[in-house]
Amino acid sequence: MTPETAFVLNTFSLLLWGTLVMWMCAGFTMLESGSVRSKNASVICMKNVGAYATTAIVFYVVGYNMMYSGVDPGGWIGSPILLYGATGAERALLGGDGAATAAVVDNGRAAMADWLFQMVFVGSVASIVSGTLAERVKLHSFLLFIAILAAFIYPAVGSWTWGGGWLSAMGFRDLAGSTVVHSTGGWAALAAVLVVGSRRGKFRPDGSVRQTPPNNVPMVTLGAFIVWMGFLAFNAGSHTGLTGAADAVALSNIVANSTLAGAAGAVAAVCLSRWVLGRVDLFASLNGGIGGLVAIAAAPDIPTHLWAVAIGGIGGVLCLLGIRLLERLKIDDEVGAIPAHLGAGLWGTLAVCIDGGGDPFVQALGMAAIGGFAFGASLLAWLAIDFAMGCRISETAERLGQDAVLGIETFPEFLRHEDE
Amino acid sequence: MTPETAFVLNTFSLLLWGTLVMWMCAGFTMLESGSVRSKNASVICMKNVGAYATTAIVFYVVGYNMMYSGVDPGGWIGSPILLYGATGAERALLGGDGAATAAVVDNGRAAMADWLFQMVFVGSVASIVSGTLAERVKLHSFLLFIAILAAFIYPAVGSWTWGGGWLSAMGFRDLAGSTVVHSTGGWAALAAVLVVGSRRGKFRPDGSVRQTPPNNVPMVTLGAFIVWMGFLAFNAGSHTGLTGAADAVALSNIVANSTLAGAAGAVAAVCLSRWVLGRVDLFASLNGGIGGLVAIAAAPDIPTHLWAVAIGGIGGVLCLLGIRLLERLKIDDEVGAIPAHLGAGLWGTLAVCIDGGGDPFVQALGMAAIGGFAFGASLLAWLAIDFAMGCRISETAERLGQDAVLGIETFPEFLRHEDE
Amino acid sequence: MTPETAFVLNTFSLLLWGTLVMWMCAGFTMLESGSVRSKNASVICMKNVGAYATTAIVFYVVGYNMMYSGVDPGGWIGSPILLYGATGAERALLGGDGAATAAVVDNGRAAMADWLFQMVFVGSVASIVSGTLAERVKLHSFLLFIAILAAFIYPAVGSWTWGGGWLSAMGFRDLAGSTVVHSTGGWAALAAVLVVGSRRGKFRPDGSVRQTPPNNVPMVTLGAFIVWMGFLAFNAGSHTGLTGAADAVALSNIVANSTLAGAAGAVAAVCLSRWVLGRVDLFASLNGGIGGLVAIAAAPDIPTHLWAVAIGGIGGVLCLLGIRLLERLKIDDEVGAIPAHLGAGLWGTLAVCIDGGGDPFVQALGMAAIGGFAFGASLLAWLAIDFAMGCRISETAERLGQDAVLGIETFPEFLRHEDE
Repeated sequence: MTPETAFVLNTFSLLLWGTLVMWMCAGFTMLESGSVRSKNASVICMKNVGAYATTAIVFYVVGYNMMYSGVDPGGWIGSPILLYGATGAERALLGGDGAATAAVVDNGRAAMADWLFQMVFVGSVASIVSGTLAERVKLHSFLLFIAILAAFIYPAVGSWTWGGGWLSAMGFRDLAGSTVVHSTGGWAALAAVLVVGSRRGKFRPDGSVRQTPPNNVPMVTLGAFIVWMGFLAFNAGSHTGLTGAADAVALSNIVANSTLAGAAGAVAAVCLSRWVLGRVDLFASLNGGIGGLVAIAAAPDIPTHLWAVAIGGIGGVLCLLGIRLLERLKIDDEVGAIPAHLGAGLWGTLAVCIDGGGDPFVQALGMAAIGGFAFGASLLAWLAIDFAMGCRISETAERLGQDAVLGIETFPEFLRHEDE
Repeated sequence: MTPETAFVLNTFSLLLWGTLVMWMCAGFTMLESGSVRSKNASVICMKNVGAYATTAIVFYVVGYNMMYSGVDPGGWIGSPILLYGATGAERALLGGDGAATAAVVDNGRAAMADWLFQMVFVGSVASIVSGTLAERVKLHSFLLFIAILAAFIYPAVGSWTWGGGWLSAMGFRDLAGSTVVHSTGGWAALAAVLVVGSRRGKFRPDGSVRQTPPNNVPMVTLGAFIVWMGFLAFNAGSHTGLTGAADAVALSNIVANSTLAGAAGAVAAVCLSRWVLGRVDLFASLNGGIGGLVAIAAAPDIPTHLWAVAIGGIGGVLCLLGIRLLERLKIDDEVGAIPAHLGAGLWGTLAVCIDGGGDPFVQALGMAAIGGFAFGASLLAWLAIDFAMGCRISETAERLGQDAVLGIETFPEFLRHEDE
Repeated sequence: MTPETAFVLNTFSLLLWGTLVMWMCAGFTMLESGSVRSKNASVICMKNVGAYATTAIVFYVVGYNMMYSGVDPGGWIGSPILLYGATGAERALLGGDGAATAAVVDNGRAAMADWLFQMVFVGSVASIVSGTLAERVKLHSFLLFIAILAAFIYPAVGSWTWGGGWLSAMGFRDLAGSTVVHSTGGWAALAAVLVVGSRRGKFRPDGSVRQTPPNNVPMVTLGAFIVWMGFLAFNAGSHTGLTGAADAVALSNIVANSTLAGAAGAVAAVCLSRWVLGRVDLFASLNGGIGGLVAIAAAPDIPTHLWAVAIGGIGGVLCLLGIRLLERLKIDDEVGAIPAHLGAGLWGTLAVCIDGGGDPFVQALGMAAIGGFAFGASLLAWLAIDFAMGCRISETAERLGQDAVLGIETFPEFLRHEDE
């Protein structure tokens, strides 16, 4: 394969997987929108559409450069240059200057293909935060936080790792983002929920939990299927090369391991749900599958597939136990995003050491540093937002539902929520 | 890269993007079906499934040849040969005649891969018309028009441009169909609505608008996400080559620019909706995103990404303003398809001149010629259909809902519409 | 194209198509979940999620090896080796041993890419059985059967054909599984329904049919669109090579023929539904489209596209007639899975002989042998399951709905089914 053919395949692969990862935003939207009470389901759609669009713009204007441009080897952050774009050599090549080909090909892949793939990852991080905060966060406050997340918090963490910064120099391994993407999202969500607080009535005075029923179970299931499918692309695309047989084999192992880990997570969580909840629980299986996929994301190219099953299964179990733990701690995470992404993400980052080979100390250091920073920076951001504009809807809006307040009822022919 | 490898990649790329564009038909169906009142939602599904199937058959039997086969350089129409298919050289190659390889490879891509990609574009055009006419058009009349559209109206326009006809010879540029696909669909929808008329009660005697609530907002959102995803494939696949580094870079810019334009359209429309409608409007963002994607379709390979943001943002704004304008004109476009596809499509065709380089006079001429023809031919077709078989359901059917009349209730357990 | 480039493209193609086929599981879930009464819709989701996860694990642990590993030429079954995985040469290559490249490339495609593609096929077989048994089968009994199906019944049939066994040696042709996948699923579903029985009240004492309305028609439509899209990948990926111009042409013909056959099936079934049912029936078109796609699956690379239209159209007609036939026979197939997959699958397997070239005797023998085995083995399995643990929910559970019993209401805010 010539270097140019390799460049073409690398780029094409990244674009196709990236397009499927973009589709995960739809999955997270359906999952969250179907999980809430119908009086808030339309606003969930608005939040997620807004978060996706905001992420795209902000990550283009400032985020990508903060993450990847001019990160010193071992450094802490990229450059605050505005507007990422095709390289000079790429523009020359498109302008007809064939001599630029060598310089273009030398980059391995086209600049904007990489931008797309990285951007849709930030979209996933935003979806995690959205899921936790459902039914009580102010739309504008949420979108402002997403802008900060996409412009600074996520790019900082990314620059340490995938951008070639200090954690990368120490040998921290996280192929597809168990920590970089999922734990970061989970920590941000945890910080957010501490500031925003629980939904009114979620915890009774005696400490017991008042479950709110999902308004549309098949929609939640559809969302989970979309997310599962997107994860195959998420993990596959993270192996950014497609230049020879070794790459093709690695890619195949990644997709197969991800499939197995997701299935194992779903099965393990369902089996546990029989014991913990006393019933075969659909949501346990859906979240468990996501937990399994998050857990395998750090090392989806693990050589032994049976380990993928084990890592995914444990991810699913952690996800279900995490939901229980949060309820004990009176932390209200509507869709279970924190257990699925933070809990399983931490486990997956450690699990790299099992068979893929990673230094447990470095992995733990990375988890702690990224966790500390993502949680701390998010907490500061949320406190500032709360101070400046408030982050929580009014009690009336919460009782009536955000849809009524924003004037977009989800199923206007079916239910009226005026006085609940 | 050998010519044969290039042929393989060109074809494979076209098939994958084409498969994702086919998926847009599901998106338009969900968007339209979720937007109407539930008494008509099932018939919307039937209309769209029927339009997709009709398009596939008709474009195979006659449409593709009318658009691409034997168009004279600078000509006005292709050949009315029946049945498109694999070329003779392709059939020889599959039959084991290795000597045919050179002739096959010389075509650049496999014949039926191109057929697929072009066919799913016609499916999009059909969806546009469907969206505008929701809740009052006769199913059979609609499908007959779609057959005429796929057999003749769209192929004629296509032959002038992508088929190598007179507009192409003048240098008209429209890479992924802002005018060829979207404006054509919008003009056809406009002609249709003038003949079919508004839904009863849509405009009150005093001229004010009676909004009909969508029956399922998350379904509309899902549909919009599907359409957004499909647009990435729509624009990417329109750059039909994948034969070297320049193609890979162009493809990356196209997908990135499309993503940015869609996001900008959504953001701009939402910001405007706060001002125009007094609220943050989900439908403005969904339609605005589509408007942005339509606007960028004419030149998604534009070199400066910031222009993509601007073009998309303006597309989103035009979409929202267009909805308002149509209401003033008492034109009832149920899902806002005309503003999103015609309004933003015209803008995008002009915007080619900004940074991509296009002759404003030629672009304007193309817009006028295609608009005049698509509108005129569609108007004639609809008048003929109305004369021959009527194009509008009975007053009773409209009051009861088309679902009841056709015997397929959308949510039979939830609502009865018998006497509304 | 070098052998290594061919290996890369073969593998990449298989992974992408396989990812889209995995997505069909979501489609079948939505189709089935939307088709039942809402009191059972959540359990349908659980059943399908469980079937997908079970299939992935079981086909990894034992199924794939039973189907493909060490099948004697002309043999009857593979090896009961546990755990499939990357080959030794692949592991050596990933470990840095460049000398292993030749052995890896010699396999044509990466091992786990093939595993993924085959596994998602078994997922489709499981979905077929699920669809037929909706609303009365015990969840655990169903999942146990799926495990047996994925571990033994499907792999046996597969080893005779795609695994290189005795039917393959005789020249049996079934490129994408009209018989291997779809008829096998249909026979298994038929055996299952004979043991499990009809839903209570489905057939009135006078023999007439009491139709149960679907709870969500647009969801059914979405599911069908997903399945249609997945079928393009299903049939395309079955042409496992992408190594030159001939492959690219064949792939294009496959995708185009599949599109045409699906469209023809939908159109033919709708036209027939006007005559048979007295109305234009949406479900006829959705099932007819699936029937057309199933029918073309045996020979989607048929050279004459018009035959694809005819084969698909007849598939659609058979699907609708089959639904009628089953009702006459008092066999309760909730979503029409048996006609769509078994009826159209048998027809498609015979239709191979028309233009693609196949020996009618061998095709008929294959259909009979696979049918006899799949039906017989499934019947035994279901009888054993029924004996050991029962296969049918209680009368109370059936009346109240499985959702209430399992504690996951589909639309808890909208309907209560307690006393129906």
